[in-house]
Amino acid sequence: MLQNALNQAKSYMKEIVLPEDHVVDATAGNGHDTLFLARLVGKNGKVTAFDIQAAAIDATRERLVREQAIHQVTLYHGSHADLSTVVTLPIRAAMFNLGYLPGADRSITTTSDSTWTAILGTLNLLLPGGRTVIVLYHGHESGKRERERVLQQVADLPQEQFQVLHTAFLNQQNSPPELVVIEKKKQPVR
Amino acid sequence: MLQNALNQAKSYMKEIVLPEDHVVDATAGNGHDTLFLARLVGKNGKVTAFDIQAAAIDATRERLVREQAIHQVTLYHGSHADLSTVVTLPIRAAMFNLGYLPGADRSITTTSDSTWTAILGTLNLLLPGGRTVIVLYHGHESGKRERERVLQQVADLPQEQFQVLHTAFLNQQNSPPELVVIEKKKQPVR
Repeated sequence: MLQNALNQAKSYMKEIVLPEDHVVDATAGNGHDTLFLARLVGKNGKVTAFDIQAAAIDATRERLVREQAIHQVTLYHGSHADLSTVVTLPIRAAMFNLGYLPGADRSITTTSDSTWTAILGTLNLLLPGGRTVIVLYHGHESGKRERERVLQQVADLPQEQFQVLHTAFLNQQNSPPELVVIEKKKQPVR
Repeated sequence: MLQNALNQAKSYMKEIVLPEDHVVDATAGNGHDTLFLARLVGKNGKVTAFDIQAAAIDATRERLVREQAIHQVTLYHGSHADLSTVVTLPIRAAMFNLGYLPGADRSITTTSDSTWTAILGTLNLLLPGGRTVIVLYHGHESGKRERERVLQQVADLPQEQFQVLHTAFLNQQNSPPELVVIEKKKQPVR
């Protein structure tokens, strides 16, 4: 069976993330992806995870403690738009899972301005060959707008510096999530 | 580095094609993909390869003989629209590399009518879990029209029977090829 967008995102991470790497989870949510990343980088790696909602940070901490993976994770309760001030060293990868926290207040969703600021922040921090992956949920109205905006903005990234891959399921009626993978090129083409 | 559309197509084939399988190369061209498929299915498998151009069939035969992979390949000089009459047993997979034969007469390109007939032909023949992959070159005018038409048509395939994944590079100026992967579901959802 073809992988859904979230599992595709994880596969694109697994291809490049190594033990001891530093990576970013821009949208901790319930901590599923944070845990996935924490295991990829291992005890000597580092994950910096963001979420605007206190409930998300709490749920993520709880999950990481239970799974004995809190050691290598720094949780930041605040907007991922602060990313550039919170993270200053190069990163191998970053992951965005855009939309609202499952089961939580649906009025708090990721918003386009802060999202794009955060995405650009990760692109600046990426090591050559590093990737920022973005899962786009667009079943709800604000998700649709966010999807449109992200797709337009990534299409304008300079091709000398980045590859941008977009994947989508075309024939499903329930707006399944889509994926964007941005890879920083190893050597800028002149 | 992210895989280009052709290498993505090959990866999606490798995931499911087994030795002794029967597969279709709907666009033999210079035989590169035919050889790739012949190696995947092995000596006891079967590849049926189509091309409308005699030069393509000749080039493919020559390559397969040289690479000692002709044994498991049946070459068919004619339109892949004949697929349903030429191939009657179930297949694991089919591959389309749409566009003109590199280096050959550019007035002979795959055309949308025959392409869609052939794609539908493969979908009928696919085993459950089987895949038809389509690489879309749209750097030239007829390729652009063909891309549009294929994307519209695959979006209308019934979601109970098929998953349709589309991948594209968004930020490149030279119209890099895109990919469509159609997978026949193992159990129709009711």
